[in-house]
Amino acid sequence: MVKESDFELVEEPVTALAEGQARVRNLMVAFEPAMRGWINEGESYLPPVGIGEVMRASAVGQVVESATPELEVGEIVTGMFGWQEYTLLDMRQPGMLGGANKLPPGATPEQALSVFGITGLTAYFGLLEIGQPKEGDVVLVSGAAGATGSVVAQIARIKGASKVVGIAGGPRKCRWLTETLGLDAAIDYKSEEVGRRIKEECPEGVDVFFDNVGGEILDSALVNMAQRGRIVLCGGISRYNEAEPSPGPRNYLELTVRRCRMEGFIVIDYFSRIPEAAADLAKWISEGKIVVETDVQEGIENVPRTFLRLFSGENLGKQLCRLAEASPAS
Amino acid sequence: MVKESDFELVEEPVTALAEGQARVRNLMVAFEPAMRGWINEGESYLPPVGIGEVMRASAVGQVVESATPELEVGEIVTGMFGWQEYTLLDMRQPGMLGGANKLPPGATPEQALSVFGITGLTAYFGLLEIGQPKEGDVVLVSGAAGATGSVVAQIARIKGASKVVGIAGGPRKCRWLTETLGLDAAIDYKSEEVGRRIKEECPEGVDVFFDNVGGEILDSALVNMAQRGRIVLCGGISRYNEAEPSPGPRNYLELTVRRCRMEGFIVIDYFSRIPEAAADLAKWISEGKIVVETDVQEGIENVPRTFLRLFSGENLGKQLCRLAEASPAS
Repeated sequence: MVKESDFELVEEPVTALAEGQARVRNLMVAFEPAMRGWINEGESYLPPVGIGEVMRASAVGQVVESATPELEVGEIVTGMFGWQEYTLLDMRQPGMLGGANKLPPGATPEQALSVFGITGLTAYFGLLEIGQPKEGDVVLVSGAAGATGSVVAQIARIKGASKVVGIAGGPRKCRWLTETLGLDAAIDYKSEEVGRRIKEECPEGVDVFFDNVGGEILDSALVNMAQRGRIVLCGGISRYNEAEPSPGPRNYLELTVRRCRMEGFIVIDYFSRIPEAAADLAKWISEGKIVVETDVQEGIENVPRTFLRLFSGENLGKQLCRLAEASPAS
Repeated sequence: MVKESDFELVEEPVTALAEGQARVRNLMVAFEPAMRGWINEGESYLPPVGIGEVMRASAVGQVVESATPELEVGEIVTGMFGWQEYTLLDMRQPGMLGGANKLPPGATPEQALSVFGITGLTAYFGLLEIGQPKEGDVVLVSGAAGATGSVVAQIARIKGASKVVGIAGGPRKCRWLTETLGLDAAIDYKSEEVGRRIKEECPEGVDVFFDNVGGEILDSALVNMAQRGRIVLCGGISRYNEAEPSPGPRNYLELTVRRCRMEGFIVIDYFSRIPEAAADLAKWISEGKIVVETDVQEGIENVPRTFLRLFSGENLGKQLCRLAEASPAS
């Protein structure tokens, strides 16, 4: 299990800007379960963050110094600025995750980092491209009160699902899913028998299961899939802190009997299509069809502790930490 | 584990034919690992075979009596005739698995039950429809010396795979894969470290893994998949005789990191497309591109024992049992 003491807050001198560089003061950083994987050793879809390096993270910041025509002082931008108060950007060598991008028109930093950020895009492309929901489908989402799951559930509804069921931990989250987001049902994995409840809520089977959790919840879903169902493997937060992988889904051969597909994806593959997703998401937000919830903690010294909230399940909606207020100069 | 004493050989009087019926004398029965699932209790893609019922099985038989214009005495036909010497067919109510079909032109009973039968069709549709191999792909097959796996490996080669690697048990089967079928490499799971050997043979990763086995072999393949690889879940013979499902693939989250798809299928969904498959297979056989191997045992009393050969891995190629010779009247 990752812990606060795995991270260290260090001060470093601020260096002068070279041509093409700019300095951003970070206003808010965002947290995703996938970041847990980035601090494991070994090959993955991104190189691991090495010991002593700044932790990689999405953030929103304000340009405070600029030696590039692309960025103006005072501008609010978003990018992989990491866990730090100030980030030095080099617009000539933006790196594989891009340099700095403007926020979608009218978007707050909270929205830029949640529904328009990694988790919202993950929900959008994962559900639509991998899950391929059809009108009338029954859609089940685990981690449904999280930043990705909550957007998945709402997009499923927009796309005409006949029933959307969310799995979350605790009565507060479950109530939020049904009362605020308007899901048809919520299953509390902390107090309910998940398999029995899925069967009860989805007697004809689940057409699309969007899984953020893995473990027992995935196994319970596998035996309740409809014929030709699709399981979107977004991740497995129940497993990210294990030193050795625990047993996998013992019911995986249900995929054969039920002619199902289980497929993984990485949202960075869809970055070229962000404008399309952002346009849809902005429309749905303006129409009140997508509700965005955030959990905002405060202060650079609280950043590691805020990361841990993802794994203890304290957060409802997108987990964020505010480092500074935007200067009015913007 | 299924055992011989789970089956009983009983004699029953032969009843007179009603209008629309015919009697077939079974010449040869075929065995598939999936049959193990048919004698489990509970819902699946076919109703279970009940206690006291004739075991369901594909067979080739000769019509010995007919009260239907569709079948002529002496004709050789194939269908789900079961483990019995004589089968009463009702052409007016052929049931969900069809009545009796003619053999493909020029096909022997052995070919009709192997490459043109359930296992050959499973190989054809599973590889081409689910695996979707592209020219230059690296293809890995488990259970590669079995009736399905051996046809999969040969079709992969025909379709332009850059490398075809088979996993099988023991030096005899592995030698057969490389020397007779012309595979690029064979991995002996009984004496070699499968994961290390896959990595060695497929350093760029596996594009298509056709899995007949499951268990540790599936886990070893998961960590060696190429980006956007496809795992065809044909079955899991390593698990069919377990009372409780053993742990699933602990490495299943590799599907996410590697953007892979794992998908199951049931060959009966493709029965309407049999003519297309049979034409391709017949062409490849006539061109010498597909070698068909069978293991033929003898006698109705040996049928249950022959079934067990699938699970002990004694068979190389299609497991069959001959019950009678065709009458020369045909």
